[in-house]
This record gives sequence, C-alpha cells and structure tokens, in this order.
Amino acid sequence: MIVVTKAERLNTAPVGIIVEDENGAKAKAKLYASHTRENVEKGSFFVANIIKDPLIFAISAFDDLSEEYFESLDPPVIKGSLAYCEFEAKLKGLFADLRLLNGKIIRNELRAVNRGFNAVIEALVHATRYVKNRDPELEKKIRECYEIIEKCGGEREMEAMDIIKERTGIY
Amino acid sequence: MIVVTKAERLNTAPVGIIVEDENGAKAKAKLYASHTRENVEKGSFFVANIIKDPLIFAISAFDDLSEEYFESLDPPVIKGSLAYCEFEAKLKGLFADLRLLNGKIIRNELRAVNRGFNAVIEALVHATRYVKNRDPELEKKIRECYEIIEKCGGEREMEAMDIIKERTGIY
Repeated sequence: MIVVTKAERLNTAPVGIIVEDENGAKAKAKLYASHTRENVEKGSFFVANIIKDPLIFAISAFDDLSEEYFESLDPPVIKGSLAYCEFEAKLKGLFADLRLLNGKIIRNELRAVNRGFNAVIEALVHATRYVKNRDPELEKKIRECYEIIEKCGGEREMEAMDIIKERTGIY
Repeated sequence: MIVVTKAERLNTAPVGIIVEDENGAKAKAKLYASHTRENVEKGSFFVANIIKDPLIFAISAFDDLSEEYFESLDPPVIKGSLAYCEFEAKLKGLFADLRLLNGKIIRNELRAVNRGFNAVIEALVHATRYVKNRDPELEKKIRECYEIIEKCGGEREMEAMDIIKERTGIY
C-alpha cells in the first residue's frame, strides 16, 4: 500500500501493512526512520491507498507524490487508487499499531497475478536499500527482478523499471 | 491464473496469461510440453480461474486438483475462485493464441500487494523447474523466496511453502 501522511507537506511512501486477522480492525506496520514515521510522531493522519499502478509505487518509493497525483486531498486519495483506509497509528518500538477508522472502495478491479508487477515491488524493496549501501548482493537481486519485469511486465512495469534504473544507476 | 483443461480427466495448472490489450478479447499463453498442452491439442476447453489462495497454486503446480477442489465442474470453477474466463485456444508454436469466449466475476475481493503471496508464486516457478534439473542456482532462489514468505506471508502462504519444501526437498 502507499501510505500518505502530512506534517508540513504531504508525504507518500510504500509501506507493508501486516493484517493478522482479516476480519478485525487491527493491523501493524514496520516503520523505520522515515518521513512517514516523523509525521506519525507529529500526529499526522495515516491513510493507506491500494494502488495497482507500478509507476506510482516506483515514484513514491524515491520521492513524494506531488498534489497533481491525487484525485482527492481530503481524504488523500491517489489517482487510480482502488481503495483507501484511514488508520489511527500509534508508534510502538519499530512498529506502528494501526486501527482502522474508516475507508472506502473506490474502484473494484479484479486483477490476476502479474509477475512483472510483483517484480517491480521486489526491485523497489531492494533498490531503496541499495541506494543507501550499494550492496552488490542487492544489485544482483535487482537485476534478477529486471529479467522478470522484461519477461512478464507491461508498459507501466517497464516505465517503473526505468525509474529504478535511473535512481540506482543499475542499468 | 490456474488453467483447467480436460481430456480423459481434469487437468489444472498455473499458467501465465499475457494480455497485451486490456480492452481486447485476445491474449496468449506460453505452453510448454504439459498435460495442459496435450489437452488443448485434443480439443479441450481452456478455462482460466483467478485464484488468490497460495495453497491452490502450490497444489496445482505439482498435481491436478481433484474434483473436491471445485465449486462447479461446468464451467470448471475452483473453490474460492474470484473469476473464471473461458478462452478459445489455438496452438501456435510454443504459444497458445487465446480468445475470450465468456467469463464471470464470482466474488470481487480487493487485495493489496502481499509480498508473501508473490514469493510463493516465484518459488513455484523455480520449484517446478528445480524438480526436473536440481539446479543449485534455483535452490538459492527458492531459499530467497522462503525468507520473504516467512517474513511477509500469512498462514496459507506458510502451508504453500510446506508443499514446496516437501516436493523439492529444499528445507
């Protein structure tokens, strides 16, 4: 999911939200030192968007989405978002305990598994670490993701890969 | 997607279906030598099910699903399937050219990205090759998938991983 928070300005970041009980209102998320975490500390709202566009994941992994990427600012809904969920977030060590406050399904589109899309997500996890430590093991994993993206991805996945290439310098 | 075909008996197999134009009725799938391919040669129907349960993917990667796994046999709909699509399939080299004949959304459940689920799919791609060639490079990739499944997967992903472990001997 892409989480939107706000202190001085809007912050957007891909965050893994862990839902242990699908029927409950509780969830949690690991929040490393980040603008998302800082904003939560300052009392920001915490709104998760379900996004299917790999390009939005790629952009928000490295930068904040500017306002033009939103179809609504209150609640903060990214263009093309399938749904949003507003959570109450309480920091607890490395995690944030989340409680669902409200949410809405905006467009319910069924998607089959897309290995190309999935490889973009994995590449982004590795790439955001790689730009900090230049670990050659991560470079290898990113290249493996490129292979899957090239084989299974569509146009949007290829565009997302281009952003990863630019940002990591791994071509 | 899980593709169901039938000659003497029902065959189920995970197949990657490539849709180049989301608004068109055409698609294609790479079909290596397999029961799916043989059944298509014999004139079987070709019905793809959109499945979200990683355990169904794991079972059908190695075995055929028995009839008890189906909620309908005509059309062949696997229990819990989100939708099914019936295609006309014409073999063309390594590929099958597909044309959508009909389909139905059965239950429209919105899902966010689940890295654990995605890692099950990748592990299965590697595992079905690994059982044929015992390539140590594939073993390494499968173990990397295990790490992600353990970190991000839920109960069903863990059960799927257990099947992969049993079938590959990679514990």
